[in-house]
Amino acid sequence: MPEMRHDPIQKRWVVIATERGNRPSQFLRPKGNWREDTNPFLEGNESMTPPEIYAVRKKGTKPDTPGWQVRVVPNKYPALKIEGNLDRAAMGQYDKMNGVGAHEVVIETSNPDEDITDLSLDDAILVTKTYRERLTDLMKDKRFRYVLIFRNHGTLAGASQPHPHTQIIATPVTPLTISIELQSAKDHYHAKERCLFCDIIAQELRENRRIIAQNDRFIALSPYASRFPFEICLLPKHHAHDFREISNDDLIDFTRLLQDTLRRIRIGLDDPPYNLMIHTAPNTGSDTPRPSYWNTIKYDWHWHVEIIPRLTDVAGFEWGTGLFINPTSPEQATEFLRGIQLG
Amino acid sequence: MPEMRHDPIQKRWVVIATERGNRPSQFLRPKGNWREDTNPFLEGNESMTPPEIYAVRKKGTKPDTPGWQVRVVPNKYPALKIEGNLDRAAMGQYDKMNGVGAHEVVIETSNPDEDITDLSLDDAILVTKTYRERLTDLMKDKRFRYVLIFRNHGTLAGASQPHPHTQIIATPVTPLTISIELQSAKDHYHAKERCLFCDIIAQELRENRRIIAQNDRFIALSPYASRFPFEICLLPKHHAHDFREISNDDLIDFTRLLQDTLRRIRIGLDDPPYNLMIHTAPNTGSDTPRPSYWNTIKYDWHWHVEIIPRLTDVAGFEWGTGLFINPTSPEQATEFLRGIQLG
Repeated sequence: MPEMRHDPIQKRWVVIATERGNRPSQFLRPKGNWREDTNPFLEGNESMTPPEIYAVRKKGTKPDTPGWQVRVVPNKYPALKIEGNLDRAAMGQYDKMNGVGAHEVVIETSNPDEDITDLSLDDAILVTKTYRERLTDLMKDKRFRYVLIFRNHGTLAGASQPHPHTQIIATPVTPLTISIELQSAKDHYHAKERCLFCDIIAQELRENRRIIAQNDRFIALSPYASRFPFEICLLPKHHAHDFREISNDDLIDFTRLLQDTLRRIRIGLDDPPYNLMIHTAPNTGSDTPRPSYWNTIKYDWHWHVEIIPRLTDVAGFEWGTGLFINPTSPEQATEFLRGIQLG
Repeated sequence: MPEMRHDPIQKRWVVIATERGNRPSQFLRPKGNWREDTNPFLEGNESMTPPEIYAVRKKGTKPDTPGWQVRVVPNKYPALKIEGNLDRAAMGQYDKMNGVGAHEVVIETSNPDEDITDLSLDDAILVTKTYRERLTDLMKDKRFRYVLIFRNHGTLAGASQPHPHTQIIATPVTPLTISIELQSAKDHYHAKERCLFCDIIAQELRENRRIIAQNDRFIALSPYASRFPFEICLLPKHHAHDFREISNDDLIDFTRLLQDTLRRIRIGLDDPPYNLMIHTAPNTGSDTPRPSYWNTIKYDWHWHVEIIPRLTDVAGFEWGTGLFINPTSPEQATEFLRGIQLG
C-alpha cells in the first residue's frame, strides 16, 4: 500500500509509492525511454491492461476485447490504490496516512499514431466526454477530496507510453497547488463578491494582448505571470466551477478550442513535450471536514485548463524558491501562437 | 530590464526575463546541450566573463587575470539585474515590478574536471567560505529580501556550463517556497517555543532510520516526506538561522559532510544530475516592510541545504497539484546511501 506522508516544513503531502520501483538501479537508465516494448494500449492487447473501467465501444462488443474507441483502465503502476482506509496516524511529529486513491488511464484512441490533437472533432469529444464521465464517477467516492485529469505528452514531459492517453488521479487530500488557488479565489470573492477568474477574463478581453484564441464559450490565454514560455490557460468565458457540469453544447466549443490550442503549439513549437492539467473544483461531497472555502465554491471557483510546454529546464533556483524565470513574455508568446497557420 | 509579475491565483511572483532568449526558435534545440563551445570559466579566459566581483587569488595577481582558485563573476545572462529601482505598479488587477536583483556565478575551481566533490577539503572550504562572503555582501543591499545559493549539476539538472560552478540569486521578494517554510517554522515556534528543525533533528537522532551521515556539528538526512528518490537535507545540529554566521570551525565540518554526501550520491547513483539549494534566513536588513515572522527569526528558523538528485520526471500530476509521487522510501534511500563505500 502506498503511504502518504506530510512534510511539516513545506506543508505538503507526498506519496511514497515504493511498488512503482524501489531499487536504485532503476534510476541508472538514461531518461526518455519508453517503459515497455509492447504497446498495452493497442486494440487487440486488452489483456495486457487491468480490466477496463469504462469504454466507448461498438455495440455488441464485450469489455476487454477489441471494438472500442476510448477505453479507461486502472494504471498498471498506480501511484495510489483504490482499496483500503486512510488510517491517519502521527509518527512522532510527522503525519502519515495510507495512499488511498484512484489512478486511471484514458486511452484516447485505438490508433497509436493520432492523439486528441489529430482526432476529428466528434472523436475528440468522445474523449472529453469520457473525462466528464470518470470525474463524475470518481467524485462519488467520499474518500476522495480531489480528482486531477492530466495529460503528459512526450517522454520529456513524463509520458511513459507513447500511445496517446490521459491520466486521472483521485487523492485523499486537497493538493497544495490547488489549495493555494482555491484560497486566492476565495479571498477575492470574499472581498469583492466577484469571481477572480471572471475578472481576469474581462481584463484580458479588454486589453486583448494575451488572447491566443477564443470561440463563443471558451478562451485560451497566455497568463500574465506565466511561469513557462508559451504557457496557456484555457477557461470557460461564462462562470462555471465544476467540469462535471459542462453541457454537451459547451463540450463541443471546449474540445474545439482545446484542439485548436494544442495544434498551435504543435505546429509552432515543433511538437514540444507538454503537460496539460484540468483544475476543476474539489470534491465537496467528500466525507472529510469541509474547509470554509467550500461554502462559496460554486461562486468563487472557475474551472480551467493549464497547458505547460516543457521547453525550459526547471533547475535549482526554481526548486529552491518556487520563483520561476521565464525567458519569453506572455505577449510575445501570444503574438507567436496567434500567428500560427492551422492549415 | 527583466520584469517581475505577480500571479493573483497561485500567489507567486515570476521573472519575465526576455533578454535571456525570446525567439521561439531557441526552444527548438534538443535539451541537454551546453550553451557555449568555449569555456568562459577556464583560467586564461577571464575576459570572456563580466569583470570579477570577488576572487581567491595568488598574492600579486590582478583581477580578471589568471592566478585564482575561486572566482565570482556576474552571470552573463542574468535573470535579475543589479541596477535600478523596483517601481512597483498595478496593471489592472495584476501586479508588477522591475526585476531588480543580483545573479552571480561562483567558479569553484580553475580545473574544469573537478568540482566541489573532488576538491581537497581545504580547497572546498575556499568555495564554501566564498558562499558566506557573497551572502554577507549581497545582504547589505536593502532592496534584496532573499538570497539563494544553489548548484545545478549536469545538463538534466539545468546546468548550462559543464565547468563546476555555483549560482547566487538575490531577489526583491521572499519567494513562495521560502515563505511557506518560514511560516511553518514560525507557527511551530509560536505554539511550542521550540525550533521545528531542532525537533526534527532530535526525532531523527532518536529513531536513527533516516540518517545518511553525520559528524560532530552537521547531519545529512533523508527527509521523512521526501518528494524525490534520494532527496537529502543537510543541517547544522545546533540551532543556527543564518549561513552568514557560520564560524570557520563549523565551516570545516559543514564542507566535510557536504563532500561526503555528494560523494555518496555520485558513487551510488552513477553521478546523477542534481540541484543543491541553501535555505538561509531572509534578509532582515532589507528596507521593505517586515512580516511578523521576522521578529523571532533568530529562534524559529534553522538554515539547511536541500539536495535533489534528478532521477525521476516531474510531470503533469506534480505540476498540477504540488503533490509528489516518490517511488523510493526515505528509509530505503538511507540504507542505500549509508552503505556506499567512499574508498
